[in-house]
Amino acid sequence: MLLHLCTWPEVESYLEVSRGIIIPIGSTEQHGPTGLIGTDAISAEVIAKGVGEATSALVGPTINVGMALHHTAFPGSISLRPSTLINVIVDYVSCLTKSGFLKFFFINGHGGNIATLKAAFSEAYDRVDNLGIERADEVKCQVANWFMCRSVYQLAKELYGNQEGSHATPSEVAVTQYVYPDFIKNVGELTPAPSGHPIYGAKDFREHYPDGRMGSNPNLATPEHGGRFYELAVKELTGSYLEFLNSD
Amino acid sequence: MLLHLCTWPEVESYLEVSRGIIIPIGSTEQHGPTGLIGTDAISAEVIAKGVGEATSALVGPTINVGMALHHTAFPGSISLRPSTLINVIVDYVSCLTKSGFLKFFFINGHGGNIATLKAAFSEAYDRVDNLGIERADEVKCQVANWFMCRSVYQLAKELYGNQEGSHATPSEVAVTQYVYPDFIKNVGELTPAPSGHPIYGAKDFREHYPDGRMGSNPNLATPEHGGRFYELAVKELTGSYLEFLNSD
Amino acid sequence: MLLHLCTWPEVESYLEVSRGIIIPIGSTEQHGPTGLIGTDAISAEVIAKGVGEATSALVGPTINVGMALHHTAFPGSISLRPSTLINVIVDYVSCLTKSGFLKFFFINGHGGNIATLKAAFSEAYDRVDNLGIERADEVKCQVANWFMCRSVYQLAKELYGNQEGSHATPSEVAVTQYVYPDFIKNVGELTPAPSGHPIYGAKDFREHYPDGRMGSNPNLATPEHGGRFYELAVKELTGSYLEFLNSD
Amino acid sequence: MLLHLCTWPEVESYLEVSRGIIIPIGSTEQHGPTGLIGTDAISAEVIAKGVGEATSALVGPTINVGMALHHTAFPGSISLRPSTLINVIVDYVSCLTKSGFLKFFFINGHGGNIATLKAAFSEAYDRVDNLGIERADEVKCQVANWFMCRSVYQLAKELYGNQEGSHATPSEVAVTQYVYPDFIKNVGELTPAPSGHPIYGAKDFREHYPDGRMGSNPNLATPEHGGRFYELAVKELTGSYLEFLNSD
Amino acid sequence: MLLHLCTWPEVESYLEVSRGIIIPIGSTEQHGPTGLIGTDAISAEVIAKGVGEATSALVGPTINVGMALHHTAFPGSISLRPSTLINVIVDYVSCLTKSGFLKFFFINGHGGNIATLKAAFSEAYDRVDNLGIERADEVKCQVANWFMCRSVYQLAKELYGNQEGSHATPSEVAVTQYVYPDFIKNVGELTPAPSGHPIYGAKDFREHYPDGRMGSNPNLATPEHGGRFYELAVKELTGSYLEFLNSD
Amino acid sequence: MLLHLCTWPEVESYLEVSRGIIIPIGSTEQHGPTGLIGTDAISAEVIAKGVGEATSALVGPTINVGMALHHTAFPGSISLRPSTLINVIVDYVSCLTKSGFLKFFFINGHGGNIATLKAAFSEAYDRVDNLGIERADEVKCQVANWFMCRSVYQLAKELYGNQEGSHATPSEVAVTQYVYPDFIKNVGELTPAPSGHPIYGAKDFREHYPDGRMGSNPNLATPEHGGRFYELAVKELTGSYLEFLNSD
Repeated sequence: MLLHLCTWPEVESYLEVSRGIIIPIGSTEQHGPTGLIGTDAISAEVIAKGVGEATSALVGPTINVGMALHHTAFPGSISLRPSTLINVIVDYVSCLTKSGFLKFFFINGHGGNIATLKAAFSEAYDRVDNLGIERADEVKCQVANWFMCRSVYQLAKELYGNQEGSHATPSEVAVTQYVYPDFIKNVGELTPAPSGHPIYGAKDFREHYPDGRMGSNPNLATPEHGGRFYELAVKELTGSYLEFLNSD
Repeated sequence: MLLHLCTWPEVESYLEVSRGIIIPIGSTEQHGPTGLIGTDAISAEVIAKGVGEATSALVGPTINVGMALHHTAFPGSISLRPSTLINVIVDYVSCLTKSGFLKFFFINGHGGNIATLKAAFSEAYDRVDNLGIERADEVKCQVANWFMCRSVYQLAKELYGNQEGSHATPSEVAVTQYVYPDFIKNVGELTPAPSGHPIYGAKDFREHYPDGRMGSNPNLATPEHGGRFYELAVKELTGSYLEFLNSD
Repeated sequence: MLLHLCTWPEVESYLEVSRGIIIPIGSTEQHGPTGLIGTDAISAEVIAKGVGEATSALVGPTINVGMALHHTAFPGSISLRPSTLINVIVDYVSCLTKSGFLKFFFINGHGGNIATLKAAFSEAYDRVDNLGIERADEVKCQVANWFMCRSVYQLAKELYGNQEGSHATPSEVAVTQYVYPDFIKNVGELTPAPSGHPIYGAKDFREHYPDGRMGSNPNLATPEHGGRFYELAVKELTGSYLEFLNSD
Repeated sequence: MLLHLCTWPEVESYLEVSRGIIIPIGSTEQHGPTGLIGTDAISAEVIAKGVGEATSALVGPTINVGMALHHTAFPGSISLRPSTLINVIVDYVSCLTKSGFLKFFFINGHGGNIATLKAAFSEAYDRVDNLGIERADEVKCQVANWFMCRSVYQLAKELYGNQEGSHATPSEVAVTQYVYPDFIKNVGELTPAPSGHPIYGAKDFREHYPDGRMGSNPNLATPEHGGRFYELAVKELTGSYLEFLNSD
Repeated sequence: MLLHLCTWPEVESYLEVSRGIIIPIGSTEQHGPTGLIGTDAISAEVIAKGVGEATSALVGPTINVGMALHHTAFPGSISLRPSTLINVIVDYVSCLTKSGFLKFFFINGHGGNIATLKAAFSEAYDRVDNLGIERADEVKCQVANWFMCRSVYQLAKELYGNQEGSHATPSEVAVTQYVYPDFIKNVGELTPAPSGHPIYGAKDFREHYPDGRMGSNPNLATPEHGGRFYELAVKELTGSYLEFLNSD
Repeated sequence: MLLHLCTWPEVESYLEVSRGIIIPIGSTEQHGPTGLIGTDAISAEVIAKGVGEATSALVGPTINVGMALHHTAFPGSISLRPSTLINVIVDYVSCLTKSGFLKFFFINGHGGNIATLKAAFSEAYDRVDNLGIERADEVKCQVANWFMCRSVYQLAKELYGNQEGSHATPSEVAVTQYVYPDFIKNVGELTPAPSGHPIYGAKDFREHYPDGRMGSNPNLATPEHGGRFYELAVKELTGSYLEFLNSD
């Protein structure tokens, strides 16, 4: 059930049976020579939809652009500053809390979002409480990173070993291939990608990771793998969402 | 050509032939008893894709949530505060200007975004100039409202007369029916919607427009109409984009 | 009745009979080779005073500096960033709502203010509502642009045809001549001013409009014209204000 | 020479002979039962004009609304938050520094502005320096409080002794009577005003100073006194401005 | 070598041999019925000093108040909002980068700071780069959480098993006992503390953790343990700092 | 009684007998060739502790970094921007007001903090009032500058005459020598320091005060003097705090 495809009276009805909402959040950033710039948004969105179907939960609009400042030395990357993203999250949570939502489950496709999201949750709890919104003290946010699901992680390890790497990974590329089989990019064999250098600013990142990959070999990805990752992530996050929803 | 489905080297190549990018911006807000909450984002996105195809332009990720504070007394509406949206636009423009983009063409599906977008453009010109980004003084932004296209306006008038209204209009509903024929909502006959009261705050809006419509009869919409609106908007905005792109 | 010339007990008494206030807003920006830098503030202020007298409405202090970033490549122009102006408006509305005012009628002399003002109104409705100020949901703001009054527009067309242009217009210059007949500037005959280029950043503006005029011939202005524009604007906005004040 | 009554080429010429500008800043706040709400803006403006005439300096538009949050429990008072006023000052200084101004002399009519102004100057030096504006490291701001001029202070003491008080003082009321002799308010004899309680928040202020006066007897003011205060302030600040302008 | 106990010429000399600085960051928040409110700042500071001595590194002033909004339902807790803390970090990094520092090693005593710190680092890289500070693209920040050192974690497990818990832990309490043996608080036997409930807003936290402890038994702490934790943390972070300093 | 060395139940008990708290605020900035960078924080902290002991008042954590932008051209200086410091103060006051504190006594060691602190107090009164915190209208903040105590000033004059100067003064250096006798720096005889130039931006400051001193001869300082200054400041501020605490 997608919020975008509902009417407001349908949302009103939904709120009588559930106070939970799933919000996919991705990023718009380089994913190496073959990965799609929308990889993180695409994967978060499709998995969120899957979880939404499995749980009859409402799925909000995808936050397509996240915190990816360190990727902005590659053309096409777009990032919010952390301070902007915090305000975006605060605004989402404020509006939806006024609507009656209390449980916000962010399905996240980008590691770089995690810190800012968590900071934003703290800011949001404080804000809704200060605004005097009813039941504001019951507002709860959770970030669920599909790529950190135990089952996903295990399959990635099994399929790719240490060629999974940590950015532009075959697992995330596989999910996009599963969703967009017509947009599989091929630039021939890839040299081994560097790894191990921590993430600092944009120029430094590009200097150390000249084609954008961090230790990964996305050529190992297949749409079929993508389907399996999708299934695992949906299954595991379905459990997480229900647990979150039913927690006090 | 969707930015989300490109790799960064593809964007690099694109920048050798064009400095323009199209960014769809919609809203997540009530659209009356039958209109989809995502109406403005859906229509902006589909039309932007059409224009992108017609012009070989790059189309960035859709801004799904815009400035809709006045709709937030209806459940399911989400809005950024104007000050937040300004920062979002500034961040988009800053990042993409660093990438090499100079012409930003926002295809907009929501009247409530216009003022804030224009304010944001001014803020963005100033910011990129202050940041010392190369060619910053050539950055140009334009907002193109598909629903204000002359041809669209004329067809709406012809098909619906004054039952077009000004919010939750049959024309915009028709476009969503064209895109999502399986999500046509029907709640039976609608009473005539009030109209004429200006837009102020959220509570005032709901008081004056209790089911969310402003003077409109969305029951008149058909998917076929939607297809016609889509074609007209794409055609007209294709012209606008090319003119913008080629202007000095 | 000017707020600046009242005592607070007089304001208290006024609030027993009216909840409306008029706030003039102008700009401090170049107006071509002969137009005064204060043109927009001067005209907004004098017209606001006229409307105030005609309606016994309170007139607040003039906002002299508005959103004119695109004029800042000409010496002497001052602009607030849109984000700053939004906060200024929010502060005015918050304070005055606490005082008991509910209807804010901004008489505006500068086209460049409109977008930011409208964005600010949305931000202000949200803020006063969040602050828990009494009757906050009744707060209403309106922007009234004197230069867009139908009667003003018609007279300008009649007197100047297309030499009215769109910046440093003879009509606005005429109003300042009417108010300050001793400050009529004369630099001899003016070459036809360029027109048609949209407004982007400050450097781009000056490049396309080297002496600051946009399609106008301010040499056509006379103080007597100014008096006629003044009368028309006051009359028309008197009607607008009363309608606004009496609306629900 | 008032910036508002200049054209931009006149400003350009002025900048060839001087880099200084005077900016009056007042407040819009209660001044007791008889003092005008615009007292601080009126006095700052008239004295700034006087200094401008005496020194051939350019005088910018008056900042009518300052930092007066502690007066906002009285109807008609308007205040910027300190954070807003800081941004206003930063924007003024940024724009005018780009124009070529380097010496900013704020003639101030309100004690409550001083702290925020000084904070704003620090923020402004940092900002213009960060923006890479040419000669930014030469920017200098100074606040000159007319009511703290030694000669003004001495006359006030001589005329009013301790009935001068510290808010809604006879000296500032006198200046407004001198400027607006037709707006002298009279509510009969005034009881002695309380004094000595420090300034905290708005409600606390009104509780301790129920009619708005702090230790003052504004009934002692006369327009003739006002003229004398005006002359003294103009003379003393003329010296201060010239010293500031000529300092390295 | 403490920055606070240096002169500026000493800092200048230091910068000729090193570009690194250590900044302790703690929190001011409840630590259960017996833990000191300053626990996180005290521990971060003492360990930072130890690392500074071991590495001849400069140690900056302790950030005593961090991000602890979720503890603010207990009296005495103070928190910055995440957006405030981001600006604090940005200001530190900007100033010190202008001084010549390039490697910022934050020794952190509070889990709740981590997300906001990481968000702040991203914001800081972007800001210093935008400000045009020399060598800005070499700026690198790292957060080092002493309580997450492997050796510390192992000792805590060995000494306390699952009574270590996750807030107001015996290990952190032990460190404060080691530093302040005269301030060991004793309230008698403690009931087992609840655990397992995630952290959301302040009221929710207190509801679930009524005395502030999360699964911990701080009564197990001894000053002697504290000394051992201190030694382990200093040793391990000395290695981390040197590795960071010497990394490219 | 230091907040950092208390438990939250101890703070709860304290609040039953007092609503006051002392917060030391210093700065991290150059203090000439021999003065410690932490001079202002060290002196504010030690004096605050002394006052806390004398009055049984709670003393909060020291704000080590204040507003010192004008010192940032000397290596090692760190400053918050005024806008950041305002938010820091607002956050402190908001949190502690929620705890139940109402009287905030800032013992300040740095002249450059005063303006921003006062601006911050105004912002804080407004914010806590807007947040609807109980008893928010009773919140009161005061800044007490130890170096401006009458008795301190007199002793400095007596000991140093005009060699006291106004920055890196022998009196403040003496206090740090009293606290840290092992960190007395000696660089030999000092040339007379320039004085009289007002404070503007950072580069301008260093240009006029090349070694950081403003008219001072810190070589006159002795630890014994420091002890006398300490005693005088504690005594005088003890009186001030009690008066503040007991005022309505």
